Amino acid sequence: MTEGFRYARRVHFHETDLAGVVHFSCFFRYMEEAEHALWRAAGMSIDRAGAEVGWPRVATTFDFRSPLRFDDEFEIVVRVAKVTKSTVQYEFTFSREETDIGSGTLTAACASRSNGQMRAIPVPADVIDRLRTASHQIG
Amino acid sequence: MTEGFRYARRVHFHETDLAGVVHFSCFFRYMEEAEHALWRAAGMSIDRAGAEVGWPRVATTFDFRSPLRFDDEFEIVVRVAKVTKSTVQYEFTFSREETDIGSGTLTAACASRSNGQMRAIPVPADVIDRLRTASHQIG
Amino acid sequence: MTEGFRYARRVHFHETDLAGVVHFSCFFRYMEEAEHALWRAAGMSIDRAGAEVGWPRVATTFDFRSPLRFDDEFEIVVRVAKVTKSTVQYEFTFSREETDIGSGTLTAACASRSNGQMRAIPVPADVIDRLRTASHQIG
Amino acid sequence: MTEGFRYARRVHFHETDLAGVVHFSCFFRYMEEAEHALWRAAGMSIDRAGAEVGWPRVATTFDFRSPLRFDDEFEIVVRVAKVTKSTVQYEFTFSREETDIGSGTLTAACASRSNGQMRAIPVPADVIDRLRTASHQIG
Repeated sequence: MTEGFRYARRVHFHETDLAGVVHFSCFFRYMEEAEHALWRAAGMSIDRAGAEVGWPRVATTFDFRSPLRFDDEFEIVVRVAKVTKSTVQYEFTFSREETDIGSGTLTAACASRSNGQMRAIPVPADVIDRLRTASHQIG
Repeated sequence: MTEGFRYARRVHFHETDLAGVVHFSCFFRYMEEAEHALWRAAGMSIDRAGAEVGWPRVATTFDFRSPLRFDDEFEIVVRVAKVTKSTVQYEFTFSREETDIGSGTLTAACASRSNGQMRAIPVPADVIDRLRTASHQIG
Repeated sequence: MTEGFRYARRVHFHETDLAGVVHFSCFFRYMEEAEHALWRAAGMSIDRAGAEVGWPRVATTFDFRSPLRFDDEFEIVVRVAKVTKSTVQYEFTFSREETDIGSGTLTAACASRSNGQMRAIPVPADVIDRLRTASHQIG
Repeated sequence: MTEGFRYARRVHFHETDLAGVVHFSCFFRYMEEAEHALWRAAGMSIDRAGAEVGWPRVATTFDFRSPLRFDDEFEIVVRVAKVTKSTVQYEFTFSREETDIGSGTLTAACASRSNGQMRAIPVPADVIDRLRTASHQIG
């Protein structure tokens, strides 16, 4: 069993496309939802209007192995994979029952907003500690 | 020929759903795109970060008469239908060649942002003049 | 307390816009999610690939009274408001704790798919019975 | 100047999020739009209901270097980067005037639909020829 924080989701009708499966762009929304659920489990909120610290996305990838369809219930396991001075990389694995749906990564920079500009700042150590602790909880 | 500002659009793949047609929620995005195109034609921009005046939505309706499909080219005609002290109501008609796709309305309030709250203010007279003039131009 | 089937939801980050609130087009997605949750509660699925009967949208409306923001938890109460020979109209009320968010309607036609065309057919009586029964359950 | 097919686009309001920039998931929709525009320029359509051949996504990546904001006009340059027996990989570079917005890849498999299942088949040689020819045209 993959280790990490578990986020469960059901596919909405509006997420499907004419090929009858979930549109591939939705997987990036799903990853973000799992990331935010992990933050909530860690007792934090990733973003709020006017916050001085934001987490702009630096890079993201996804490998698709099986499609998701309308009303499918699936699970995402997310964990903190890598931390650099100013970035956090999350890894995500998607499954539906025993089926491997795919996996992805999302790298976010820690940035301070000042005068409308974002400037990279060091990732606060306690944020990582809290995310890592929450990753071992049941979501 | 319906009078008003004309906005042309092509259906994107990600706007379709598993029924093979454009998802009904996208029609509200299309109406907003036409509204913003009208504003641009009038030499204005409806919203920008930090703007003190916003246009929150009060009400909207749509009547669907024919579906849109992937790659369809369609046209929206938008005009200012009604103005009250603090609101503007737009009317939209959608067509694809000779086919009537449907029609809708969108009512926005003119509001001033202060301390994170929106408060209704009178619609500036020149905004309406400019929108009405632009409605008679070719988009 | 409003009578009907209750559907609970949390606002996702990707549903907000630069005004800091949920984009108005998302309310139509939320109404559809509540409709589908009602169908599931009634032991039915509203749509599946290849189904001969579909429920194309005929008309929809929404009146916005208070915005939703990132991470807000809100509730939708949905009920069958009106049934004609070939259509079902649902009514929805949205609230966040004690705050009235807004309300809307969605009218869907019962249609049979044949040769790629949709043709209106009578709404099956047992569908309405099951939806009405499910509306009295706790979601 | 980067070589490839050029697709121009303007940012819609509904593509922004509360951080005031285009939500990162939209970049995948933009890449697909550019892919489909390339196909149209090549005299082909990538997908239509009932088509026996589809192009399910195998993998995709994006590196974000500068944000896009409401009403920004930007350009995507797309080209066929790699072809294997059953897959095509596209490369995309995004720019707004002189600003480098980011770049990404999208790998699609050529698949045949039969009995609701997708099975990989060889990429037709003439499809690649036409895409490569169209990449040298002005979009």
